[in-house]
Amino acid sequence: MTQPIQTLKGFRDFLPQEKRARDYVADKIKETFELFGFEPIETPTLEYASLLTGKYGEEADKLVYTFEDRGGRKVGLRYDQTVPTARILAQYQQLLPKYFRRYNIQNVFRADKPQAGRYREFTQCDPDIFGSTSPLADAEIIAVTYWALKNIGFNPQLIINDRQVLFTTLSPFATNTVSVASIIQTIDKLDKMTQEAVVTELSNKGLTPERAKNCLECIKDALPTENLKTILKMLPRLGVDENNFGFNPSIARGLDYYTGMIFEVKLPEYDNGSVGGGGRYDNLIKQLGGPDIPAVGIGLGFDRIVEAAIKLQLIPDFSSSATILIGAIDETCGQYLLESATSFRKNGVKTEIYPAIDKPGKILSYANKQKYPYVSIIGPDEASKGVVTLKNMTTGEQTTAPLDELISTLKP
Amino acid sequence: MTQPIQTLKGFRDFLPQEKRARDYVADKIKETFELFGFEPIETPTLEYASLLTGKYGEEADKLVYTFEDRGGRKVGLRYDQTVPTARILAQYQQLLPKYFRRYNIQNVFRADKPQAGRYREFTQCDPDIFGSTSPLADAEIIAVTYWALKNIGFNPQLIINDRQVLFTTLSPFATNTVSVASIIQTIDKLDKMTQEAVVTELSNKGLTPERAKNCLECIKDALPTENLKTILKMLPRLGVDENNFGFNPSIARGLDYYTGMIFEVKLPEYDNGSVGGGGRYDNLIKQLGGPDIPAVGIGLGFDRIVEAAIKLQLIPDFSSSATILIGAIDETCGQYLLESATSFRKNGVKTEIYPAIDKPGKILSYANKQKYPYVSIIGPDEASKGVVTLKNMTTGEQTTAPLDELISTLKP
Repeated sequence: MTQPIQTLKGFRDFLPQEKRARDYVADKIKETFELFGFEPIETPTLEYASLLTGKYGEEADKLVYTFEDRGGRKVGLRYDQTVPTARILAQYQQLLPKYFRRYNIQNVFRADKPQAGRYREFTQCDPDIFGSTSPLADAEIIAVTYWALKNIGFNPQLIINDRQVLFTTLSPFATNTVSVASIIQTIDKLDKMTQEAVVTELSNKGLTPERAKNCLECIKDALPTENLKTILKMLPRLGVDENNFGFNPSIARGLDYYTGMIFEVKLPEYDNGSVGGGGRYDNLIKQLGGPDIPAVGIGLGFDRIVEAAIKLQLIPDFSSSATILIGAIDETCGQYLLESATSFRKNGVKTEIYPAIDKPGKILSYANKQKYPYVSIIGPDEASKGVVTLKNMTTGEQTTAPLDELISTLKP
Repeated sequence: MTQPIQTLKGFRDFLPQEKRARDYVADKIKETFELFGFEPIETPTLEYASLLTGKYGEEADKLVYTFEDRGGRKVGLRYDQTVPTARILAQYQQLLPKYFRRYNIQNVFRADKPQAGRYREFTQCDPDIFGSTSPLADAEIIAVTYWALKNIGFNPQLIINDRQVLFTTLSPFATNTVSVASIIQTIDKLDKMTQEAVVTELSNKGLTPERAKNCLECIKDALPTENLKTILKMLPRLGVDENNFGFNPSIARGLDYYTGMIFEVKLPEYDNGSVGGGGRYDNLIKQLGGPDIPAVGIGLGFDRIVEAAIKLQLIPDFSSSATILIGAIDETCGQYLLESATSFRKNGVKTEIYPAIDKPGKILSYANKQKYPYVSIIGPDEASKGVVTLKNMTTGEQTTAPLDELISTLKP
């Protein structure tokens, strides 16, 4: 039978080592979200195509995977988590709490050009608070983002602004031909482009070079709004270290739908890219077909966070699921082998049984190759004496002792 | 904007309470799999359609969601976890251990007729051991299944057989027109049909009524193979209670690809249906395009297991993610509110901040409605004295004390 033994471009397999790393990071994020009272939800992978398209413009629509199912329905693969959540908010309005803190950790699909670090199936982690306009909600979103990353071991940097700062400061520079939204778009690039390049782009858009320069100066000197001041003052009280956040009047978070606080997260130890961004979007849920409900949240790029965590060695080095590989060298010790494995397991020690009767050297070299922390080889001697020999594969140290003793040293 | 505010038929949303139950059960299963040394892997949701179709026959092919992507590739949604795993085994042969224990917990998609308990997107939990023909591997698969369910709180029943028992016993009854496979298919129904009905079906297939009756008697008296005896003897040593498993010579597990031990899992406290089935399938991986490698495993139906766990009340009653809802009645206590919440959180107490300044009655009735175990309302009095008042929403009991004291009683 011939067939492509390969994945589609832009899609990935995760073999055990990487999958364990992903699970570890996802668990940490989940734990933090729930520590802050966020509630998990799950939406289907497939939705009506009409739900998914026409939401974020034509360019985005091209990236939605849509097709006709066998029943002739136009369907599509989840593109983001906000649109399905808007549907949830509309569909279950009566069942959901007034202040709904939810999170989704799910895969989304984009028919995008695959390139380094960009995939067609990837994971998003989105915590949001619906129903509250209070700066308390804004502060909680920033704090949960900080702690989710902090608890993985990162030293995250949060760059915070308010859309109103941009509007108030930049509106005077708008003309009949250059909209304030267009100016904001260019100003947002100050992070990645030189000041000169930004001035040039503004000039190309139609501002005089003088006005363009002036525009830059104004935005640099801009002060936070009262609303943002309140939010910023709350952060240290939510445990966010003063060194880990700051006001930056020039960040704009491209997307038009933000209405208030906006912020961006970086992991400077890793690189200068962003691992997530969010803010307040009080009108979007209604625009997406949901109820008229204020919202604030963030989308975290799970895949980049995992990459950074691996690179920065923040993930405990579990080279295998099992702590011990245990094997028998002789049929006669089979019974003792199974009982020993079961005792380890009953005490929470992750134990893999070598699924063959084999020579000690074979079992040992297998354990070595597969990097089990410990190996135990059961022979007639161990079985008759009721002991187990445990070899620490890192130090080479070998201990022979009754099972109970060994268990107490290995118990998690 | 008009749009369907609904999910596609056969697809489901999971709101917080159900999602928490699912996460709880998934974690338990994962924990047990890893306790037995199984390694997690993840495969993409989309694969080449040619990989997914032509594997399990025409009927199955009709259930695969396939479509053409924007690049003109024929693609399809994951239909099961065995086919992608066969691809993994082929594609990464050099990287994988000789004895590869892996598990997948992922969603699969079937364009099936939706009906009670049958969905178009559902979750499968599959642990398998590849590379070993030893009965140790068969026993491990049965044991891990038992423990995964036991650790959730079930009292599972494992019904075990060997395909060889069926072949040896039933081959003499096969004729030119009635194959042994066809006889096995009918015998497999003894579980759901009366003996008379089975005899009738066999007669309809072409056996004389006498032969049909005789066939039934023979299968009832059949004895386990030597191989199966070895496996069954191992189970108690792997901690599987004698009361929880048994040999049943008539179960056949419909699918043709099994080559040795086969088994089925039921939760008799819940209902008489099966929540999973598996066995040894030494030729399938090669047939699916993978390497020629022996395999034994089981597929557990996650959705039915969750349903049973909810019904049997095996899931701890966490009515909300947060243990405490904490709110302030006055702007002046905002600082103290945030600091209190942060202290709770730093000690692992799941805490949700009520995202508004509100009247005590409002906060209390919200906490009551949303079923938080505890509520804490911060007023100027608490803030000035440096205490927190905590109300147990189950007992109605109210305690006012310094934060540290309350934390020590709530700390997980």
